[in-house]
Amino acid sequence: MREVAIIGIGQTPVDEHWDKSLRELAGEAVLAALRDSGRETADGLFVGNMMSGILSKQESLGALIADWVGLRGIEAVKVEAACGSGAAALRTGLMAVRSGEMDCVIVAGVEKMTESLPVETTAALATAADADYESAQGVSFVALNALIMRRYLFEYGWNHTDFAPFSINAHANAVHNPFARLREAITEKGYHQARMVADPINLLDASPTGDGAAALILVPVDTLYPDASRPTIVIAGSGMATDSVAVHDRYDPLFLSAAAKSAQKAYHQSGLGPQDIDFFELHDAFSIMSALSLEACGFAERGQGPRLALEGQITPKGSIPICTRGGLKARGHPVGATGVYQVVECVQQLRGEAGETQVDGAKIGMAQNIGGSGAVIVTHILRVK
Amino acid sequence: MREVAIIGIGQTPVDEHWDKSLRELAGEAVLAALRDSGRETADGLFVGNMMSGILSKQESLGALIADWVGLRGIEAVKVEAACGSGAAALRTGLMAVRSGEMDCVIVAGVEKMTESLPVETTAALATAADADYESAQGVSFVALNALIMRRYLFEYGWNHTDFAPFSINAHANAVHNPFARLREAITEKGYHQARMVADPINLLDASPTGDGAAALILVPVDTLYPDASRPTIVIAGSGMATDSVAVHDRYDPLFLSAAAKSAQKAYHQSGLGPQDIDFFELHDAFSIMSALSLEACGFAERGQGPRLALEGQITPKGSIPICTRGGLKARGHPVGATGVYQVVECVQQLRGEAGETQVDGAKIGMAQNIGGSGAVIVTHILRVK
Repeated sequence: MREVAIIGIGQTPVDEHWDKSLRELAGEAVLAALRDSGRETADGLFVGNMMSGILSKQESLGALIADWVGLRGIEAVKVEAACGSGAAALRTGLMAVRSGEMDCVIVAGVEKMTESLPVETTAALATAADADYESAQGVSFVALNALIMRRYLFEYGWNHTDFAPFSINAHANAVHNPFARLREAITEKGYHQARMVADPINLLDASPTGDGAAALILVPVDTLYPDASRPTIVIAGSGMATDSVAVHDRYDPLFLSAAAKSAQKAYHQSGLGPQDIDFFELHDAFSIMSALSLEACGFAERGQGPRLALEGQITPKGSIPICTRGGLKARGHPVGATGVYQVVECVQQLRGEAGETQVDGAKIGMAQNIGGSGAVIVTHILRVK
Repeated sequence: MREVAIIGIGQTPVDEHWDKSLRELAGEAVLAALRDSGRETADGLFVGNMMSGILSKQESLGALIADWVGLRGIEAVKVEAACGSGAAALRTGLMAVRSGEMDCVIVAGVEKMTESLPVETTAALATAADADYESAQGVSFVALNALIMRRYLFEYGWNHTDFAPFSINAHANAVHNPFARLREAITEKGYHQARMVADPINLLDASPTGDGAAALILVPVDTLYPDASRPTIVIAGSGMATDSVAVHDRYDPLFLSAAAKSAQKAYHQSGLGPQDIDFFELHDAFSIMSALSLEACGFAERGQGPRLALEGQITPKGSIPICTRGGLKARGHPVGATGVYQVVECVQQLRGEAGETQVDGAKIGMAQNIGGSGAVIVTHILRVK
């Protein structure tokens, strides 16, 4: 398989973009990534998106966005894996380059969530759950995560307050990220006082929705000219795995088996392990998911994820920094775009362009994107070549 | 790139399946394909589907179907390219095998269209058009095709009646296909008398919706043991291209440029040309599309598609048989599944298992799947090795 480098990144701020349509948002990120890469065209476009058909009455996003950015005619497709759509699109684009079919690929993630009524957005998000056996019972997506968190607190004896450092870290990092949705630091007191959404998940456990788009440019390393001005960043490992969509069907609802499997694939492919990872852009849609991801990927024992956070190990100066640009919690979670934002942020870290939240000497980063409450999970490991 | 063979096919009848959910439909086709291939598992599942989020309130189809067929945990994703989703999923799965990442891939297409109200299905289908510049004007999907057909009649001087042989051929072939939705022969008189849908498209110009699923099993040829009982069928060529989503944005609304580009890619990859193709499973969502596909792919001069049909060249005994198992017109058009049905039918022909509509000595077949009214088009060429 050909080794693949990421040579361009682009993103829009995550926000309420009332003045920008779906194609304009995506186009802004794609054109920024092309400019960043120095390329003007590509062989293919892979778009990660979950809800455009429901919320914007628009499918066929591949052709739509390709045409909008001036690349009418190129191969283009949309890839959907619920909230894991962005990384799924990256993985699909990666295979297109690895296969030898394409020499330059654009990966874009886009989601427009704030133009519809909140109840419509909530219903659209529920399509990530099992329609016949979960959503039909009236359980919302946040309620499913609340059930998982409640069980976790019971099983391992943690208090809700022990999850505060996850949200505090995310918000502290987002302050320095101009593309983040919530650039405000929060305090432990604020976390305690936040109003309840679905017990025990309160407003500061949950990531905000938003409109946003992010993009990447992939090429085979062997086609690159040496460029002393920038490190070459390669995708060293990539893996995807699934679990049951319904939480109650899982062998163990407190273990993200798809996270473990996809991380193992990425570790195996890269020849690396958790001890080699300098920072980890994980999928903190809810604070409980941060703990579960850290555990499934080998950074903490089962039930011990919160300890890492309480010890300060997840901050940019800690042993395993997470959500270094704000994570889903504070950068925001435009669902189908999130997986691409995570990788854009990994590239910023590996280029040394992460400013105040730069992880010193970062050479290897990992990104993990989760669809549903653990149903489909994609892990990528990036490294400086 | 590794050469890839199709070693298993499966399909459900296209029908109103009130007793089967989305996952049950897909599962039936996938399990049939696995049985046909002699395999019990796979490394990945690529699902072609367009409207499950809107009509069944269910996304994350990859994980959902993988789990349902007993393959919980494997990599799985949904691929969307409007009505071209099925072939787009095949192309994505093909690249996964060609890249060396996977040694056995399941490609499935599934769509459930008859459980919702007709007005809901029509609105969902309209998401294949440009939401901002077409659908917002109230133009339906069939109306867009009617505009194209009206212009074609004007430009080239054909009469509506000249398109009758396309529909008559499709229905005549479907009579012998147990999986077809409309297994009834039609006459020229019946075609004339059919009630109007959107002038000049009448009911017998238009393909019926339906619920259905189809599946394929892909493996690298170099992993196959010799099997004298069956020919080895390989994917010799594969190509995808796009055009503007909105018809009015095209340089020429009467030329399917994405069909031409994707066919050229498939021809180039396979070293074959239109003169080598023994039969062509094309995308006759509306009879006008048959003419445009034949022209764009090099089987007829511009404006001369109907002549092939009037001369009887498109029947199983003609020079370029099309829709040999009924096509979209009579087998039915469960949109996200259609592209996979077409390839299943190609395999039946190449195995010599097409019964009364067998094309004598068929060794090379082509399938072409169209998303929107020409916005995204995927072409595959299959041959007996």
